[in-house]
Formats: sequence, structure tokens, C-alpha cells
Amino acid sequence: KLIAILPGDGIGPEVTAEARRVLEAMALPLSFEEAPVGGAAYRASGHPLPDETLALAKRADAILFGAVGDPAFDGLERSLRPEQAILGLRKHLATFANLRPARIFAGLEDASTLKPEVARAIDLVIVRELNGDVYFGEKGRRTTDAGLREGHDLMRYDESEVRRIAHIGFQTAAKRRGKLCSVDKANVLETSQLWRDVVIEVAAEYPQVELTHMYVDNAAMQLVRNPGAFDTIVTGNLFGDILSDQASMCVGSIGMLPSASLDADAKGLYEPIHGSAPDIAGQGKANPCAAILSAAMMLRHSLAMSDPADRIEAAVAAALATGVRTPDLGGTASTRAMGDAVLAAL
Amino acid sequence: KLIAILPGDGIGPEVTAEARRVLEAMALPLSFEEAPVGGAAYRASGHPLPDETLALAKRADAILFGAVGDPAFDGLERSLRPEQAILGLRKHLATFANLRPARIFAGLEDASTLKPEVARAIDLVIVRELNGDVYFGEKGRRTTDAGLREGHDLMRYDESEVRRIAHIGFQTAAKRRGKLCSVDKANVLETSQLWRDVVIEVAAEYPQVELTHMYVDNAAMQLVRNPGAFDTIVTGNLFGDILSDQASMCVGSIGMLPSASLDADAKGLYEPIHGSAPDIAGQGKANPCAAILSAAMMLRHSLAMSDPADRIEAAVAAALATGVRTPDLGGTASTRAMGDAVLAAL
Ligand SMILES: CC(C)[C@H](C(=O)O)[C@@H](O)C(=O)O
Ligand SMILES: CC(C)[C@H](C(=O)O)[C@@H](O)C(=O)O
Repeated sequence: KLIAILPGDGIGPEVTAEARRVLEAMALPLSFEEAPVGGAAYRASGHPLPDETLALAKRADAILFGAVGDPAFDGLERSLRPEQAILGLRKHLATFANLRPARIFAGLEDASTLKPEVARAIDLVIVRELNGDVYFGEKGRRTTDAGLREGHDLMRYDESEVRRIAHIGFQTAAKRRGKLCSVDKANVLETSQLWRDVVIEVAAEYPQVELTHMYVDNAAMQLVRNPGAFDTIVTGNLFGDILSDQASMCVGSIGMLPSASLDADAKGLYEPIHGSAPDIAGQGKANPCAAILSAAMMLRHSLAMSDPADRIEAAVAAALATGVRTPDLGGTASTRAMGDAVLAAL
Repeated sequence: KLIAILPGDGIGPEVTAEARRVLEAMALPLSFEEAPVGGAAYRASGHPLPDETLALAKRADAILFGAVGDPAFDGLERSLRPEQAILGLRKHLATFANLRPARIFAGLEDASTLKPEVARAIDLVIVRELNGDVYFGEKGRRTTDAGLREGHDLMRYDESEVRRIAHIGFQTAAKRRGKLCSVDKANVLETSQLWRDVVIEVAAEYPQVELTHMYVDNAAMQLVRNPGAFDTIVTGNLFGDILSDQASMCVGSIGMLPSASLDADAKGLYEPIHGSAPDIAGQGKANPCAAILSAAMMLRHSLAMSDPADRIEAAVAAALATGVRTPDLGGTASTRAMGDAVLAAL
């Protein structure tokens, strides 16, 4: 099986290197090819998502992605920015289902700003739609009749887009504690009303799952008030972006959390949910656990290698249990040292 | 001065009644008129925002609003839902600037799920734009060429809308610790790019304020990770909706937080940021502090009565110091008893 590794910007190369070391150490039938993406690709070739990188991603059986984003390109027009690379990959690969589990590893309660008993109770997955919403609707600038600059972005969903992510939401919940919370803003948005209608229709096929609905403002509140009450959350691209980052911080560090972005055939792109963190790039301070755990998700979801996936996850837990901690978790271990600890625990 | 009281639905009437009692006890030159709004108005007259209610709101010098929202109307078409009343009032009154302070009252740290030292450090204001964004852009349903149901909502801002709220943001920050954080999603949205451009332009007029920019997903994260680092946040309607509810829960209970919605002349509508809470309506369990503190904000911002405003805020703090707590704060005091305690402390 061919794994495309797209390290990207900032700490992306550092953390994907550790994930690759872990995968290589397991002697699985995997081969690896790397390609530049994001600001790194723009520097090399003038485009954040070069054709060769996209071709590799399409050819590969799964993609391990680092992070994109580089403040050096802040002034650049949007279509050339590093972030366009990940948006383009998601769209071209049709990875519409983004799974973001959030659970605290034993011993990391101190890293959370939530009271330990609240943090410990968190065990949820956010299922975020990734191919639609205001991210991909028509967008632009114009000058109004009054001569004013105006910007617009169209938020939209059609029923097929909502239906397919709703199915993933229900299936995810069915494999967990059987509770699905659909998050929208149906008291204000037409898009959300359609979302809610379709989710309710799909619910008929999953009688074993208990469905609730919550407005996004309330969800942001409940994720602080009682995050342990959530099992599976299904929501749109924009709300999922916000809520999953929020949830990740509730469990202490964004440096621990992996994600999977799957297409209809469970081919996927796997990435830590943290960004490129330019402030600490190149210093060996980044936590590679999110990338390593993303590799585990890749084995499980796209490559039917559940046992090695379990082994990696157990090794991360075991490494943490020895007390090794990167700076985001209040320790001093380097990226490499954290990777070594996981390798040792494999 | 004429105060319009619009109690609304659920716990709205219970909490505004206490706020009115407090205002009346202070022997200020105020007169009061009440009118129905939301589901209550729909029941009485078939519309959530009757003409007479709107006329009263326009005639009044300030408006004290309870809450709207009633699950009995969930099936109703959007234009007739209780929530349309508050959206309509905001638009008709042109109250574009929503101020939402979040600060924890001494002794309430236990009610927050954040560690006490984190919760205690919170002292921020969210300045939320209230008349534009995806809330008021063109919205609707249609059937696509492929025969699919589709919903859409246009997110948009023009520069004048951004400029006026940016000024409020900078002015608010200048009166506080001089730090303004503008929250957007400029890596994805054109609307946000315009937002950022205009905020930067306005910044030139406020050299004493330190301006930073943050993506909304990161802001949702930082509000959990290090909420004490924020002073003033300025953001659009949708992001402000989400972040302010999140921030309110960080300080323990949404039952403590007031808000002001101001027009260009500082005429305003004042409301607790909590909703109608249908699950506890009519049981005397609601916390009236947010409504009482909203009345204090009204005296200060719209009626130039700062001293009475200070007195009310001190009375709420004093009442809490005696240990009286409504159920949201872990106590058993009724809405009325909490109101009595504030009255006694005036
Ligand atoms: C980099 C950015 C475009 C992206 C998003 O908004 O989806 C990121 O925040 C994420 O969540 O993966
Ligand atoms: C009731 C609803 C329309 C409203 C909003 O979304 O603005 C509420 O959540 C608020 O924040 O005041």
C-alpha cells in the first residue's frame, strides 16, 4: 500500500517525520512517497497544491498530512495561500467526512484548563462535513451601488450533501454509545433548516441511535458546561471547524488529537488537528502524538489494519505513562524524544 | 424616561419582573410600559413582533428584553417563529453593536467547569456586530437542476458595516485594558478578508489600542486555554453568537450575564444573554441576575445614570456574597428570593 506523506509547513515536517518512523518500525506492507504542499510548495513551485502533489495524493492508498499555513503569505491573494492546499485536497479527493475524536489520555488532566473530573469525562467524536457549506459556496468582492467595498460568501447545502454526512454520523454513533447530536443554527439559517430536515429523515434508518438537535451557540456552551454528555456530534463544515478546535482544547492539548477525512470508499487523508504553529516551528518543540495517532487512524479506517492501529495507540498511552511530555503538555521533551518514547513502547 | 419592557417567552417574564422591581425600588425618573413579544405575542396576535410592540420599542428611551423561543413553534415557518422577534427588533432599531461582558463574580468559581484560577482571570467583553452577516443576507430554499432540495444563506458585509462596529470595538478597548482582538476566518472567507482589511484601516485612528487578529477556530480554543488573555473581542454576528455563549459558560453560568445592543445614538435594547429556557419556565428557578445586570447596563449606556447602575451591580455582588444562589449556581433560591436579596442589598 502506498502512503503519500505531505509534510507541509511549520511543524508539519517535524511531526510527520515521527509518524513515519513509527509506521516504518512496524514492518507493515507499506511504501511511502513524500511531496511538498502549502507554503513549502508555493516556495518551490509557485502553487500551494502542485499538480504532482495532487496526483500523488490521488494515486496513494492513504494520505498522511502535516499542516499548512505560513504567516509569510498572509498578504497573498486567497487562491495562492497555503491553506488552499488543504481545502483543494479535501475537495479534489471528495473527503467529505471529517472524524475528530476527542478524549483525554490518562494523566493529562493537568494540561486541561477544565476541572479534572470534567475533562476526564470527555469521550466524543465530531463528525464534520468537509466539502460544502460557506467554505465552498460562491465567494467574492464587489463594489456596491453606493461605492462601498463588499465581501460575500454563500453558505449552502443540498440534501445529498447533508444525507451522506448524516449517515456517517449515525453509523459513528451506532458503533459508540448510540447518541447523536446534530448541531445547526436552524432558528436563523435556511441551510440549517434543510440540514435538520434531512438529518431527521435519515434518522428513520437508525432506530437504535438517539438523535438530538442543538443550536451551535448552545453547543459551544455545553462543550464547556458538560462535555461528558456528548457522544457523537454531526455538523457542517464551519460549525465543525469551530467546535472541534474548542473540544480539542477541553481535553488539554490540541497536540494530542488526530483526524480522519474520508471519501465515500473510506479512502482518506489523515492529519493532526493542530496547525502549522509557525511560532515553534523548527525548534523540536512540537508534540508528534497527534500525527502519530493520525497514522493509527489511517491504518484502521483506510487500510484495514486494526491491530497495528491499536498497537500504536497503546504505545502512545504507554509512552505518556512513563512521564515523557512535550512542552504543550507542560514537559520539556523534544519532538524526537517523544517519538522515541512511542517507538520504545511499541 | 420611558422603558419598554418586553418579557417574551419562557423565563423571560420571571426575570424581567425582578429587574423591574429593582428599577422601581430606586425611585428613578422612569416609567414603564410592557408589550408582548415572541411566542407569547404570536399566541395573542398571530405575529411574534406585533406592530404595537415595535412602535413601543421605537417610542421608548430604552428597552428591557426578556427572552424569546418556544419549542411549541418549532414546526412553524421561520418568519413566524419567536426568534424572529429579536432579529426584527435588532434590525428595525438598528442596534448594530452588541456588548457582552463576561467576568466572574467573586465566590462563583465553583459554578465554572474551568479551574478556579483560570475562571477568575476572565475579564473580557465581546463586541458583536448585530445587523449583518449571514443572519440578514438573502436566504431561501430552491430545487437544484438535479431535483434536490437546497438551502442557502448569504454571508455578507460591506465596509461601512464593518467600520462602525470596528469603531465600537476600539472605543471599548480604549476604555479597558487597551487590547482588541478581531476574530474572523480570513483564511477561508472573503467576508472575513474585507473585515480584516477594514479593521486594520480603522486601527490607524486608535494608536493607543493594540490590535491582534485571530481565526475563529483558534479563538474558540483560546477561550478555553487562556481566557484571561482576552480584553476586548470584536467579531461578526455569527462568530459573536457562538463565542459569547462559550465565554459566558466559562464564567460559570449564563444566568449571570447581561448584554447591551446599541444603535448609533446609544439608544439600546438590553437583554440577558440566556434564552427562554422552556425546561425551567414558570418554576421560579431562573436566575434573574442577568436581567437585573442588563437593567444596570441600560442605566449606564442609554440613560446616563451611572451611579444607579453602579449601585445595582454592587447590590448583585453583595447579594451573592450573602450566599444566596439560584439552582444554576448550585443553590436553591427562587427567582423571587434572588430578587429580594438584591433589593435588600441596594
Ligand atoms: C486551515 C483551515 C483552512 C482549516 C479549516 O478551516 O478547515 C483548519 O482550520 C482545519 O480545521 O482543518
Ligand atoms: C435567538 C437567536 C436568534 C439569537 C441569535 O442567534 O442572535 C440568540 O442566540 C442570541 O445570541 O441573542
